[in-house]
Amino acid sequence: MLPEIRKDPLSGRWVIVAPDRAVRPQDLLAANQGEKGLRPCPFCPGCEEDTPNEVLALRAPGALPNDPNWRVRVIPNKFPAVIPDVPPAPLVWPELRSNGLPGVSLPGRGVHEVVIESRRHLHSNTQQSNAELAEVLAVYRQRLRQLETAGEWRYGLIFKNVGFAAGASLEHLHSQLVALPIIPAAIEEALRATYDYYQEHGRCYFCDLIQQEQRQAIRVVAESPGFIAICPFASRFAYETWIIPKSHAAGFSAAADESLSDLAQVLRSVLLKLERGLDQPAYNFAIRTVPFDRLRAEHYHWHIEVFPRLTRLAGFELSTDFYINIARPEDAATLLRQA
Amino acid sequence: MLPEIRKDPLSGRWVIVAPDRAVRPQDLLAANQGEKGLRPCPFCPGCEEDTPNEVLALRAPGALPNDPNWRVRVIPNKFPAVIPDVPPAPLVWPELRSNGLPGVSLPGRGVHEVVIESRRHLHSNTQQSNAELAEVLAVYRQRLRQLETAGEWRYGLIFKNVGFAAGASLEHLHSQLVALPIIPAAIEEALRATYDYYQEHGRCYFCDLIQQEQRQAIRVVAESPGFIAICPFASRFAYETWIIPKSHAAGFSAAADESLSDLAQVLRSVLLKLERGLDQPAYNFAIRTVPFDRLRAEHYHWHIEVFPRLTRLAGFELSTDFYINIARPEDAATLLRQA
Repeated sequence: MLPEIRKDPLSGRWVIVAPDRAVRPQDLLAANQGEKGLRPCPFCPGCEEDTPNEVLALRAPGALPNDPNWRVRVIPNKFPAVIPDVPPAPLVWPELRSNGLPGVSLPGRGVHEVVIESRRHLHSNTQQSNAELAEVLAVYRQRLRQLETAGEWRYGLIFKNVGFAAGASLEHLHSQLVALPIIPAAIEEALRATYDYYQEHGRCYFCDLIQQEQRQAIRVVAESPGFIAICPFASRFAYETWIIPKSHAAGFSAAADESLSDLAQVLRSVLLKLERGLDQPAYNFAIRTVPFDRLRAEHYHWHIEVFPRLTRLAGFELSTDFYINIARPEDAATLLRQA
Repeated sequence: MLPEIRKDPLSGRWVIVAPDRAVRPQDLLAANQGEKGLRPCPFCPGCEEDTPNEVLALRAPGALPNDPNWRVRVIPNKFPAVIPDVPPAPLVWPELRSNGLPGVSLPGRGVHEVVIESRRHLHSNTQQSNAELAEVLAVYRQRLRQLETAGEWRYGLIFKNVGFAAGASLEHLHSQLVALPIIPAAIEEALRATYDYYQEHGRCYFCDLIQQEQRQAIRVVAESPGFIAICPFASRFAYETWIIPKSHAAGFSAAADESLSDLAQVLRSVLLKLERGLDQPAYNFAIRTVPFDRLRAEHYHWHIEVFPRLTRLAGFELSTDFYINIARPEDAATLLRQA
C-alpha cells in the first residue's frame, strides 16, 4: 500500500501513514525487540547485496559502486516511511471536504535513506577519528545539496537514533536522511518564531542566544573556534545539548570544509561527555536546518540538537506536548562540562 | 530544589524542570527498569502509611480517611512534577530579559496526584466491572470540579500510562491528575483551531466530525447511545482511538452520572478491543478537556485519546513533531471493530 501524508487540522501536525513498514500488528511487537543481534550485520562490508543499491558512497577513486571498498555509504532505507515514486496527483479525501472538515491527504512522496557512517562495526561516533566523522558530515552536506537542487522536496532532515530506547533497530553506526514535500510543523513554528524575533529586533535569535550564553556562561558545555554547545534554557530532555555555529548560517549545506572539521571535533566531544557523564545513554540527534527554499534566511540559524533518552515519554508529554525535564539545564551543563 | 516551569520561545512549548524527581543521573537509568516487582505493592490496601495522605477516597460511610477500606483513592504523587506551595512570585531570569530573549520562567506550582482505581491489584480497567470503572470516572469528575473551583489553576489533565513502553512504573491500576497554572501549548493550539473552525462554520468541529465519521463509517470502532469511538483520520499512533461524547460539551467535569456509566462501557470495550487485537499493548490515555475558565465554550468538545505504544519514538518524530503511523486508521478501525 502506498504511503500517504495526512494533516491533523487540530494540531497542524503532519503524519506519515506508512502501512508497509509493518506487515501485521503482531509484527510490531516483535520489531520492538530490535535487531541488534542480526548476523551478519547488513551494514558491514561484504553485505552490499543485501541492501538496496547505494545512492552515494565515499570510496577509493576508480572503485565500482556497491563493491565492498567504501568508507561511508548512503543507501535507500529498506523500510521507507516515504518513497519517491508515488503518483503526484493529490489524494484529498472527497468525503472530508463535503462538510468542510479540513483534513488533508497527500501522496507519501519523499526520500528516506540510511547513511552508513563507517565500514567498521562501530556503535558510536566517539569511536571514530575527527577526520572520519568530518567525512560523514561532508556526506550529509553533499546529499542535502543534491536533494536541494533536485527541486522536488521542501525539507531535508538528517537524524540519528542510538540505542534501543532512542528507537534504533541496528547497532552498526548509521544515521538517516528524509526529504519531504512539505515542511514539518515544528520547523514552521521555529521559522515563524525566529521571523517574529527578527522583525522586532533586527537580529537573528540564535546569534543573540549565543552572545547571551557566552556572557552568562552557566549553560555552556563546550566551545570551539566556530561552534558553541549549550544545554538550552527550556530543554525538553534532561541533558539535551544544542551545537550552534557561531557565524550566522541558515542552512547546514552551506558549511565549509574547515567548519565541518571543527564541528566534528565539537560533536565528538559532546557525545563523549554524554557517554561519560550519563553512562552510554540512548540518544537522538537531528540537524535542524532551514527549508530548501529559504537557504539565505537572515532569521534562521541551523544547529544540531542532541537529546538523551533517559526517561520514557508518557501520557502527560504526548497529550499536552508539555515535557518534564528532571535535570536543570544549568546543572546538566555543569556535569557535562566536567565529564 | 523547587520545580520551575519554563517556556521555549521557539516552539511555544512549556517544560517542567523538576530535578527532585531524580537524585543523580545514574538513578535515571535504574528508574527506567520500572518497579513492577516492588513488593508489597504500595497501592494495595494495608500500605496506606507508605503513601502520602489521601485527598479524596470512596469508602463506606463513616470509615476513616487513610484506613484500608476504600474502593478508589486519590493521593498526592510521591515524586511530583509540580507542587502547590512554590512561592508565587515570578522567577523570570533577569539575564534573559537584558537582550530581549523571551525566555520565561515561572514557579513550578501545581497539583500532581495519583488515582488508585481499585483496591484489587489489577493492571487493566477491563478487569473491572462497568460499575467499578464508572466509579473511577466519577472520582475524576469530582476531583476536577474541586480543582476548577479552587481558582488557582488553569488546566487539569487526567492521564494514564499502562505498561513499561508507555512510561508506567507501577503495575497496580492507577491514573494521574495534574493541575497547572498555565495551559499546555497543545491544548491552546487545539482551542485556536476549533475556535477558527467555529468562526468560519458556526458549528463545533467535533460535532461535525462525529456526523462525518458516522456517515463514512470507515473509522468507527464502537458506538453507544452517548459516545462514538473512532480512529482519527490523521492519527499519530497506530491504532490510536478517540472516544467522543455525541452531545456537545466542552468540559469532562460536566458529565452526568448516566453519561459516565455509558462512557465506562465504551471505554472498557475499546480497551478490550486493543488488548485483544494487539495482544495487551502498552498504551496511554488522556482526557482532553477544556481549560477551567472556558467550561462553556461552544467551539471545544472534550474527548478521550487512547494511544497504543507499539513503536518507539525516535529522532524523526521528536525533532519535527512529524509522526510515522504504521497502520492506516481505516484498517486499524476495521481490526478493532472486529476484535
